[in-house]
Amino acid sequence: MERRSRRLERKDPFGRHPRLNRAGAEDAAELSALLGPGKVSVDEERIRTYSRDEVPPAAMGGPHPADLLVFPESAEEVAAVARYCHDRRIPITPRGAGTGLSGGAVPARGGVLLSFERMNRILEIDEANLCAVVEPGVVTAEIDRAAAARGLAYVGDPCSGDASFIGGNVAENAGGNKVVRYGATGAQILGLETVLPNGSLVRFGGKRRKDVTGYDFARLLAGSEGTLALIVRIILRLLPRPRRSAALLCPFRTLAEAVAFVPRIAREVRVIPTSAELMDRRAVALAERYLSTRFPHPEAGAHLILELEGNHREELADRVEAVGDLCLASGALEVYVAEDRTSRDRLWRARKSVGEAIGAFYSKFAKEDLVVPTSAVPELVEAVGEAAVRWGLDSVTYGHVGDGNLHVNLLADDLPEADRRLGEARRFLYGRTLELGGTLSGEHGIGLKRRRDAGLFLSPEERALIRRVKRAFDPAGILNPGKIVEGN
Amino acid sequence: MERRSRRLERKDPFGRHPRLNRAGAEDAAELSALLGPGKVSVDEERIRTYSRDEVPPAAMGGPHPADLLVFPESAEEVAAVARYCHDRRIPITPRGAGTGLSGGAVPARGGVLLSFERMNRILEIDEANLCAVVEPGVVTAEIDRAAAARGLAYVGDPCSGDASFIGGNVAENAGGNKVVRYGATGAQILGLETVLPNGSLVRFGGKRRKDVTGYDFARLLAGSEGTLALIVRIILRLLPRPRRSAALLCPFRTLAEAVAFVPRIAREVRVIPTSAELMDRRAVALAERYLSTRFPHPEAGAHLILELEGNHREELADRVEAVGDLCLASGALEVYVAEDRTSRDRLWRARKSVGEAIGAFYSKFAKEDLVVPTSAVPELVEAVGEAAVRWGLDSVTYGHVGDGNLHVNLLADDLPEADRRLGEARRFLYGRTLELGGTLSGEHGIGLKRRRDAGLFLSPEERALIRRVKRAFDPAGILNPGKIVEGN
Repeated sequence: MERRSRRLERKDPFGRHPRLNRAGAEDAAELSALLGPGKVSVDEERIRTYSRDEVPPAAMGGPHPADLLVFPESAEEVAAVARYCHDRRIPITPRGAGTGLSGGAVPARGGVLLSFERMNRILEIDEANLCAVVEPGVVTAEIDRAAAARGLAYVGDPCSGDASFIGGNVAENAGGNKVVRYGATGAQILGLETVLPNGSLVRFGGKRRKDVTGYDFARLLAGSEGTLALIVRIILRLLPRPRRSAALLCPFRTLAEAVAFVPRIAREVRVIPTSAELMDRRAVALAERYLSTRFPHPEAGAHLILELEGNHREELADRVEAVGDLCLASGALEVYVAEDRTSRDRLWRARKSVGEAIGAFYSKFAKEDLVVPTSAVPELVEAVGEAAVRWGLDSVTYGHVGDGNLHVNLLADDLPEADRRLGEARRFLYGRTLELGGTLSGEHGIGLKRRRDAGLFLSPEERALIRRVKRAFDPAGILNPGKIVEGN
Repeated sequence: MERRSRRLERKDPFGRHPRLNRAGAEDAAELSALLGPGKVSVDEERIRTYSRDEVPPAAMGGPHPADLLVFPESAEEVAAVARYCHDRRIPITPRGAGTGLSGGAVPARGGVLLSFERMNRILEIDEANLCAVVEPGVVTAEIDRAAAARGLAYVGDPCSGDASFIGGNVAENAGGNKVVRYGATGAQILGLETVLPNGSLVRFGGKRRKDVTGYDFARLLAGSEGTLALIVRIILRLLPRPRRSAALLCPFRTLAEAVAFVPRIAREVRVIPTSAELMDRRAVALAERYLSTRFPHPEAGAHLILELEGNHREELADRVEAVGDLCLASGALEVYVAEDRTSRDRLWRARKSVGEAIGAFYSKFAKEDLVVPTSAVPELVEAVGEAAVRWGLDSVTYGHVGDGNLHVNLLADDLPEADRRLGEARRFLYGRTLELGGTLSGEHGIGLKRRRDAGLFLSPEERALIRRVKRAFDPAGILNPGKIVEGN
């Protein structure tokens, strides 16, 4: 084998890593010959666009451009790219829609950026087996829409679901608004078809609903951030679609009352709500401003959005009443019930807009994805308040309070020494999160953005296991290098 | 380090394996000194008793006695045993209650058998975080009883739950009667505390309900059959306990009608039942004989047992009626509804007795744990009928029809050439199972019993990955060697 590629020049800031090569013009030509016309790009502007996700490049030490882009259209083409790159020790970074929040799809060390956007077919909605078979480039929300047409539901529901690809959801084990009841993306996976870094096609699981034949690699791949294998086909469980649902909007006098209330639903009404979302006062204000809308009780310390489901009118009505009563007995100023689709959609649009609104109105902020045991949410919220006071920052707290996963945003626009303040406040919050039995990321992932901080939360033994399991799948280290832990 | 141990003498029938040593009298003495009195046993009778599970030793090439038994009482003592054995390359086989059905806890290559029976405390039922913290030696059903006292439920429900230990359930990713609705044991795990083969204590996950910080090793360990790490503490999710439940006993004219009916519940009533269990005519007859009881309609081709839950009387009544009506419209001869505890318990006792009854009345049989996509259950049932006719065998089919996992038993007592018939019939069924998109084991595990057959169902690439991931956790190969795949 002749080597045409230049040796990797950019030095990985974390040192110790396998030897990898850059991809050059010859590689673009060879890959183009391999895949056929129109599937390889070396256009610089396009490479820039594709080589990032929703994380500002500045938060990850600047831009990380790929050397070239490939757009395979089948599992076989993905395998051909893998074999080519494997032989030449060229990194491959898989990419979905680029809606990620941790730099998981950002090519840390150059090489080939492999976009799944052309593998975007829903191959099957299998009613008999309650599952969907999809390619990784399908937009997440389309799966639920296709399921709905058959009276079924796909319950993975990340806030970015109207744009994100299911392949990225699997790679990041994406969470979202229904995890409290149905689990994250990983819990929806029945089977995966993958391409290993050396180009072999391997299937894990299938349409069967149980499987203890070998290790549970499908579940290991969920959340492995594209570092172990390239996912080319996904079998997802579907559930019967509940006939009715209702959303409750519950303004609470204080943030503390709102977060203390949530665990009472399961204990006292004996129902796990489909969603239990939080927006603090500033999150509400941002959504109002971003969408030019109005919330009732904008002066409330926090709003909760609860969603409940049921098949029968009375069953759901009972459930809504029980939760609403408990809400009012626990400090809610009022309870608004949205049963029609339009009001529910408006409410959810507001909730889902907060992340974007922050990006639109602020440029200097820390965007965190902390998760703690649900009983510790009040203490995490207190810690955020303390950090804001101590470092003179504003804060926005919102997110999946039902499962203890809060998106904490510290805002430092126009402040002197903004970076120092943000850095110190983040470290303070990380320390408190650890003390509370929590961890660094509940759903956004580690990727490139958090790999240094991950060291605080993962023991040396666990980091070593991560590296060794990575090597078990990818001895050459070509697949999404530089992610999750230092030295990976 | 002085080596006191004899080199392993028994030759592994699958060849290729790391060099391991036997444990001798000196090792017993040293371990005893390390752990304190009464925690090590070399009593031959006791070793024989502990060195097996529910699989007849003859089905695994004869007895596989350990060299000695240890009974640690804490994570630290487990770690001390691991360090000792790791230094000396002595195998450790972890053992729960010995209720396993695949030889997972049978010491394939001698060494130390580590019983978790003294680590049997429920450490916490955490109502605020809806979780239980338990040691591995807790009897599974006790967890649900402790949860019930607080209005909560642990939904892992293997048929052996009154005897099995939760640690064994985790290691085997045990299934049972509620998987169709709630998932297997793995789906209940929030966190694990483990001892790696080299003696390090490592925690994965915790009381938090989401975590994408690093790989999902807690889920990888579920079903890893004790080959990757020793599990010393388990954090399990609990759910609000439904206030009411009802069991339906539905005799169907034919087995084919019964299995064709089950998927209609989710599609047409839009409810996933808590349980959907099958007993064919012969399974019913065996339960009747074993428990000296009577089923209604013993002439029916099969009985289904369905369980439904709800919080409100009317909600549950509606659900029972809808499912019952559909049942009657689909070939059920009658529908019996058991709402009181006594009748429900009687029904479940009958269902759970079938496995034991077979062992009590027969000595030559193949006990299979096949799983296929639910839509393929009718074809699997047909294949069992065909195999029975072709090889002149009787068959008993029962189990978790709701998730496509059937316990198929072929009976050959008093037949000439019983082993040949059973072997050929099994291979025929494996071939059909593969064609139907199914696999070898849905919940019993591979262990020692099925490791050779696993090769039919796992690709060479997947087998290689299993071995490499095994080595990532256990480079010395001392932890439960000889399981899952040949050469492990």
